[in-house]
Amino acid sequence: MALIVQKFGGSSVADAERLMNVARRIVDTYRQGNQLVVVLSAQGDTTDELIEKAMEISENPSKREMDMLLSTGEQISIALMAMAIEKLGYQAVSLTGQQVGIYTNSFHTHARIENIDGKRVKDELEAGKIVLVAGFQGVNEHGDITTLGRGGSDTTAVALAAALKADLCEIYTDVDGIYTADPRIVPDARKLKDISYDEMLELASLGARVLHNRSVELAKKYNVNMEVRSSLNDHDGTLIKEEAEMEKTMIKGVAYDKDIARVSILSVRDVPGIAFKIFKLLADADINVDIIIQSIGRGDTKDISFTIARNQLTEAVDLINKNLDYIGAKGVNFTHDVAKVSIVGAGMANHPGVAAAMFEALAKEDINIHMISTSEIKISCLVRKDETEKAVKAIHERFGLGETEEE
Amino acid sequence: MALIVQKFGGSSVADAERLMNVARRIVDTYRQGNQLVVVLSAQGDTTDELIEKAMEISENPSKREMDMLLSTGEQISIALMAMAIEKLGYQAVSLTGQQVGIYTNSFHTHARIENIDGKRVKDELEAGKIVLVAGFQGVNEHGDITTLGRGGSDTTAVALAAALKADLCEIYTDVDGIYTADPRIVPDARKLKDISYDEMLELASLGARVLHNRSVELAKKYNVNMEVRSSLNDHDGTLIKEEAEMEKTMIKGVAYDKDIARVSILSVRDVPGIAFKIFKLLADADINVDIIIQSIGRGDTKDISFTIARNQLTEAVDLINKNLDYIGAKGVNFTHDVAKVSIVGAGMANHPGVAAAMFEALAKEDINIHMISTSEIKISCLVRKDETEKAVKAIHERFGLGETEEE
Repeated sequence: MALIVQKFGGSSVADAERLMNVARRIVDTYRQGNQLVVVLSAQGDTTDELIEKAMEISENPSKREMDMLLSTGEQISIALMAMAIEKLGYQAVSLTGQQVGIYTNSFHTHARIENIDGKRVKDELEAGKIVLVAGFQGVNEHGDITTLGRGGSDTTAVALAAALKADLCEIYTDVDGIYTADPRIVPDARKLKDISYDEMLELASLGARVLHNRSVELAKKYNVNMEVRSSLNDHDGTLIKEEAEMEKTMIKGVAYDKDIARVSILSVRDVPGIAFKIFKLLADADINVDIIIQSIGRGDTKDISFTIARNQLTEAVDLINKNLDYIGAKGVNFTHDVAKVSIVGAGMANHPGVAAAMFEALAKEDINIHMISTSEIKISCLVRKDETEKAVKAIHERFGLGETEEE
Repeated sequence: MALIVQKFGGSSVADAERLMNVARRIVDTYRQGNQLVVVLSAQGDTTDELIEKAMEISENPSKREMDMLLSTGEQISIALMAMAIEKLGYQAVSLTGQQVGIYTNSFHTHARIENIDGKRVKDELEAGKIVLVAGFQGVNEHGDITTLGRGGSDTTAVALAAALKADLCEIYTDVDGIYTADPRIVPDARKLKDISYDEMLELASLGARVLHNRSVELAKKYNVNMEVRSSLNDHDGTLIKEEAEMEKTMIKGVAYDKDIARVSILSVRDVPGIAFKIFKLLADADINVDIIIQSIGRGDTKDISFTIARNQLTEAVDLINKNLDYIGAKGVNFTHDVAKVSIVGAGMANHPGVAAAMFEALAKEDINIHMISTSEIKISCLVRKDETEKAVKAIHERFGLGETEEE
């Protein structure tokens, strides 16, 4: 008898019909002889509707009260799912984060899980029940309700799987696994049978938006076997685990991210401490910087360029313009006509030919590379936005990622 | 500094505008130097919408899961109200039934409060905060969420006032107090300055639907001073307390109830145990019987008539028809063309003239009385439904209830 944690997102339980479909799937897994804990998100647009209610009252509501408000969304989902499962003739019990004993710190709206009690869950499993847990929420040391912020329900599922020592944590989503590239761009993209935590982390941070990094980091830390699979069909998904099995290709996939912008600060004085000044300013404003390139000094000045999320562009440029004197720079320019194209694969650092092969693929298509960034297991290139698809296809083909069909 | 518990119903917080109005009223009371605990119901139609969601899944959902579902409605209200009060510049904190420590038995959907911890509430009051409590809900010994059923939020308010030894429990509603009769029927009906618990209990059970009896019973038990007042204006309401001050009239008010039906079981054998058989049948089916009249036996048979809530009529008649042999009766007839008109007032039992005066008032209007029932503090008459208004007016005038205007 295996213990499985499943997580279904908000669109999977958006209405009564979909919810009943998920209930049938849950019951199927249970009938195969498994113990089952199911984590649910709020139905469809519920969270947005609750946020709208709050905004009608106050543009800047307290975070504690936002958590009190938003946590009701998941509570509604688990109650309805328990009813659905009971209607199918099986025993279920719904539990809030507080009832499960998901203890977090007190950073309301983006709390971190500190500890999971889990006794209640174990007792209910022992009693033969399917346990439904409200995702995204916990409780702090004062008994106040907290929420976990982005990727919260995935995080709840992985954390529960770790605390309960579950055999598997299945994340149900609207795609049926992790692909070597976006299938909308690369028709012969291949679904990966498995992938390592680190590779998944890079892919996720590079724009493969199937999983939130936070849940993968947690899975890596506690060695939780995750599987990403579709809630719409019964296809095998992609396993995420410590060491992925050897596959033919060292490169796991090609990712892209169009929601970025490039900012360049021009003619910065070439003296120590300048980079610190710039990136401290940005960090204090909570602006996340990704790739940073610094030109070799020309005379006594140099240029510094970096990429950020596109929705922070205005804020970043305003901030720098206000501080040009403080930074000691002549000006700033920027564009969001850029995209980041990346390859990911463990061990590529030891294969010097990999970067060259990627650049060659882009050169053959006449695609200019504006910035380059490398890490142990990924290489990213900044290209013009309208060349993204061409770049992804060329790289995918160059590394032969689509060649071997798996069963 | 007084400690006041206020309760606002669902229509008072139905949308952002009304909710802000209530927030201003709460802040006004707080600024007068009071400690303040506010109990809220779910917004407008929220509870009905949640019930509908459940019905889409299952016609017969488990009661535990209904409680898990429905309790979110009040949680949304308290979070939004906290935001509204904070927007006005005052400190507030919202608390669920579980967080307050409202412990109930495990009768889901109609739980009874067993004990209130209240430490958290006291701590927050000490810290100068306005405390917002989700009405209608509690938690059982296993930590499962329960709801209190009908009149639940009023009950929460009174129970909290008792546990915290509050100076006053204000119930805000859409009428501004308890009247000597329904002002829609009797234009010169007078608002009572005060009324005793027992009188209020009789009036409520007789159709004055301002307060649920359950909350009044609790207020009587713990000697909580209640005030019923309007959330729409600043008029004084009606105080409900142990001994109402002497007023000119002994009769406190005239009430009526049209949602009833009369059932008669005909030619029942006149032997011991028959009444037990009949009313045990009804009790087992959860049918509440109000007035019972048994005719004097004629030969070896008699008739038994009783009144019940109109929405239980079909069920009751079916039940009796199925059991005619068991009961030993010849047949059953029924009508819902009846209404109950009652007068309430402490001490009327010691004034033999009261009943006669009531009957006289009805006789003068040519209104036939079908059944009569009396208790220590009330007299009820069953009349034809279309004569209800005429009867109420005649009785109200006969006892001079509208004569003395109070300030």
